[in-house]
Amino acid sequence: MAKQTNAISPTRQEDFPEWYQQVVRAADLAENSEVRGCMVIKPWGYGLWERIQAQLDVMFKATGHKNAYFPLLIPLSYLEKEAEHAEGFATECAVVTHHRLEVQTGEDGKTKMIPAGKLTEPLVIRPTSETIIGAAFSRWVESYRDLPLLINQWANVMRWEMRPRLFLRTAEFLWQEGHTVHETDGEAWEETEKILGIYEKFAREHLAIPVITGEKTENERFPGAERTLCIEAMVQDCKAIQAGTSHFLGQNFSKASDISFAGRDGSKQFGWTTSWGVSTRLVGTLIMAHGDDDGAMMPPRVAPTQVVILPITPREETREEVLNAADALAGELQQQDYCGELIRVEVDKREMQGGAKNWEWIKKGVPLRMEIGPRDMEKGTVAVARRDMPPREKQFLARDEVITGTGNILGEIQQSLLARATALRESNTRNIDSMDDLVEYFTPLNPEKPEIHGGFALCHWAGSNEDEEKITKDHKVTIRCIPNGREFIEEGKCILTGKPSSQRVIFAKGY
Amino acid sequence: MAKQTNAISPTRQEDFPEWYQQVVRAADLAENSEVRGCMVIKPWGYGLWERIQAQLDVMFKATGHKNAYFPLLIPLSYLEKEAEHAEGFATECAVVTHHRLEVQTGEDGKTKMIPAGKLTEPLVIRPTSETIIGAAFSRWVESYRDLPLLINQWANVMRWEMRPRLFLRTAEFLWQEGHTVHETDGEAWEETEKILGIYEKFAREHLAIPVITGEKTENERFPGAERTLCIEAMVQDCKAIQAGTSHFLGQNFSKASDISFAGRDGSKQFGWTTSWGVSTRLVGTLIMAHGDDDGAMMPPRVAPTQVVILPITPREETREEVLNAADALAGELQQQDYCGELIRVEVDKREMQGGAKNWEWIKKGVPLRMEIGPRDMEKGTVAVARRDMPPREKQFLARDEVITGTGNILGEIQQSLLARATALRESNTRNIDSMDDLVEYFTPLNPEKPEIHGGFALCHWAGSNEDEEKITKDHKVTIRCIPNGREFIEEGKCILTGKPSSQRVIFAKGY
Repeated sequence: MAKQTNAISPTRQEDFPEWYQQVVRAADLAENSEVRGCMVIKPWGYGLWERIQAQLDVMFKATGHKNAYFPLLIPLSYLEKEAEHAEGFATECAVVTHHRLEVQTGEDGKTKMIPAGKLTEPLVIRPTSETIIGAAFSRWVESYRDLPLLINQWANVMRWEMRPRLFLRTAEFLWQEGHTVHETDGEAWEETEKILGIYEKFAREHLAIPVITGEKTENERFPGAERTLCIEAMVQDCKAIQAGTSHFLGQNFSKASDISFAGRDGSKQFGWTTSWGVSTRLVGTLIMAHGDDDGAMMPPRVAPTQVVILPITPREETREEVLNAADALAGELQQQDYCGELIRVEVDKREMQGGAKNWEWIKKGVPLRMEIGPRDMEKGTVAVARRDMPPREKQFLARDEVITGTGNILGEIQQSLLARATALRESNTRNIDSMDDLVEYFTPLNPEKPEIHGGFALCHWAGSNEDEEKITKDHKVTIRCIPNGREFIEEGKCILTGKPSSQRVIFAKGY
Repeated sequence: MAKQTNAISPTRQEDFPEWYQQVVRAADLAENSEVRGCMVIKPWGYGLWERIQAQLDVMFKATGHKNAYFPLLIPLSYLEKEAEHAEGFATECAVVTHHRLEVQTGEDGKTKMIPAGKLTEPLVIRPTSETIIGAAFSRWVESYRDLPLLINQWANVMRWEMRPRLFLRTAEFLWQEGHTVHETDGEAWEETEKILGIYEKFAREHLAIPVITGEKTENERFPGAERTLCIEAMVQDCKAIQAGTSHFLGQNFSKASDISFAGRDGSKQFGWTTSWGVSTRLVGTLIMAHGDDDGAMMPPRVAPTQVVILPITPREETREEVLNAADALAGELQQQDYCGELIRVEVDKREMQGGAKNWEWIKKGVPLRMEIGPRDMEKGTVAVARRDMPPREKQFLARDEVITGTGNILGEIQQSLLARATALRESNTRNIDSMDDLVEYFTPLNPEKPEIHGGFALCHWAGSNEDEEKITKDHKVTIRCIPNGREFIEEGKCILTGKPSSQRVIFAKGY
């Protein structure tokens, strides 16, 4: 079978957005549903999310956070409590207005169901939960002794999207949202930064994505936040994806929801709150960061299956023996561990043509494929293929070596993915010191391939909010963040206004 | 401090439903929210649900099921596809009719937000997902080779409730819903029974609840199902709680959603489907099954924390030493395991009065409380108190014994809870052979304590659906199930009609 028929079409170079859609389909990660903007997350995609959930959950719990669950529906009056917040989400809210259905007979005698039981107050499906959780926190917090209050929720949320894209921008998505209350602004700020650190570490070590940490400009802040920190990833078309945010909310929401407490001196004080989240968007980011023209490529740490064993059964008479050998290999391998978790192994015994089966797993991006057949059994070897190597490249390793060495190989793949993504980012990041250069940087070299161009432009900036909006409008680039790091700090002049600036910001096109 | 002030008021005997509400509050499990019928699950309650989820998830995966995720919202037209199903859920559906909010200024100049962006077709928040998952399965299943398709979803669902009760009956609840497609009716029936077996085993071994398995009568079937199997628990007021259901759906939903496939002979066939679920109702069931007049009592296997260590620090000068000893004890204990999981230990270092702290943990129902103070450190002992023993009873055990023996003690507590619940059920189950006896059995002995009475009545039954409805209406008892087990099979006469019957069914009052 010719390689062409197996690889993803179009390639990344030909049409990156369409390549992404095709990979999501070919890897069997998710699909669109009949409900506008809502996706179905298929087992392979959900398996990835389960690994992300489990590993982040450990990190949250290790830093003192506990999980809880709050209502899906928010009374309209709650949302209105924080004006900026309400305004920020108003255009994206799914609204529940009725609480039952009634059968109605039309003039043609046909029956249909219509909404009935009108609610006295409409309810909104949570686009985020600051207001409904704030109402609970207001009851829970009475004294400074109750603080800090460190809560996380794993949940679905809904933001009506006009231009949905699987994982990256869907009307319903899955996420975690942390919500904390602190006695002082200093402690709340420390929490905001601590969480950003967890997100950065998770992205780098688990997803193999070298994100940049930084702060959003005022224009890009979460509605109602005083400061918004973020992690920004660069994916293979050199665009940026905001992969997680951590908000310092000051006392805005505690005043709106009356989260107050008796302080150490007995006086009534308002809490200082934070909120922070990552979502199924991480799955899309990961695909765009690591996939290649053969399909998805899973970083071993979060791969739902890390090793697939493909039994080679050319003759019926040795079939059972080979299947048993595959099971035995799997049994021993899944006793080994990688990064503190037992290695996740699957034996694919489906009866189908071997090449097609192999390509399915390449497209799914399983880190290691192992073939075992009658000849391997004789020689005591296993054919091992790494997803980060060309599809036809295999190594024949001694079985013992495979048992003890798989953890190391997975570690090497994890490192190679991170190294590639880091190299991509570094070679597509540059200092830019004039508006002309900025415009040129983001102008496609080839108008027929408008998707691959630009990157991260590090610029001095001292413009107004309006200036920033105008650049976004005119050139479709945004300030992704004011990045953390000493390398970004230096004296210079704003590329637009010429005013003095003491640090570079990152301009990029974004998802 | 007198015991009276700590115990739950009212007691179970005085007012069981109110006792339940008070335990849920005292154990800090959940609370009502401002949204009618929707609860906030607090960290201790959610921790319990997390254990339930994790352990069931292992059982589902071990039997070949994979998790996926489907949309929260269902188009009305989908719900209508299966007529009985639509009718069954119509009165409980929350309906989304708009997709944004708009600011409106009233005559008084005040602004408010109103629903805008009317949807062409209303969407229903899933009360259960057969129809929306059926639409996906219709795409996924093409050939008999794609079967069986074994999918599970962990999700929130919504059924508008007029008389909500925390955990047992809430408008929004958390659950898992399994959905499977099979090639033959035999395989689908086998799956329906297999899952019931998992539920029974989980209830018995993990929740220490000796549920009865059986089949619902036609009246009590899931809307659209051909057969509904269930597990039924008896709680301490001798009422029944349906704790889980497993439905054999025949071809009803596969025909409604066109889940068809090319069979082995190439002909088009409809799949045979099942669906099954347990929910956060299990948490309420567990509280009602095991709690006592001092509060909740957690079965060790699912307790969020299995051991709490309470440092006794009478003098400031030994305080740090004691806290370190408590940490060291916790560190060693959580290396040990119980039932294949590391023991979950918490050190409660909060500065509060020791008696109050101890009672908080009694009310939460933590299986083991351990005290360690300066005198224990001198003697090398730890004071250990079991939640299933009277609150003041402690054993002073050698520290080494505690490290190695805690797993066993947890096992003993787990067994004692199951033994108590089994004894309760057995002593409140009896054969009843006439309508008069049935009515008497369910008539409260003391009209002032209407809640504690009756139990499971094993009766011969051969009445019609209408007869069954009438008994339910007149006497507030329902047929909980046609129980599995040879002990229920014998020839007899229906208590109502006198017609011959070959097996006893269970009548009980239920939640």
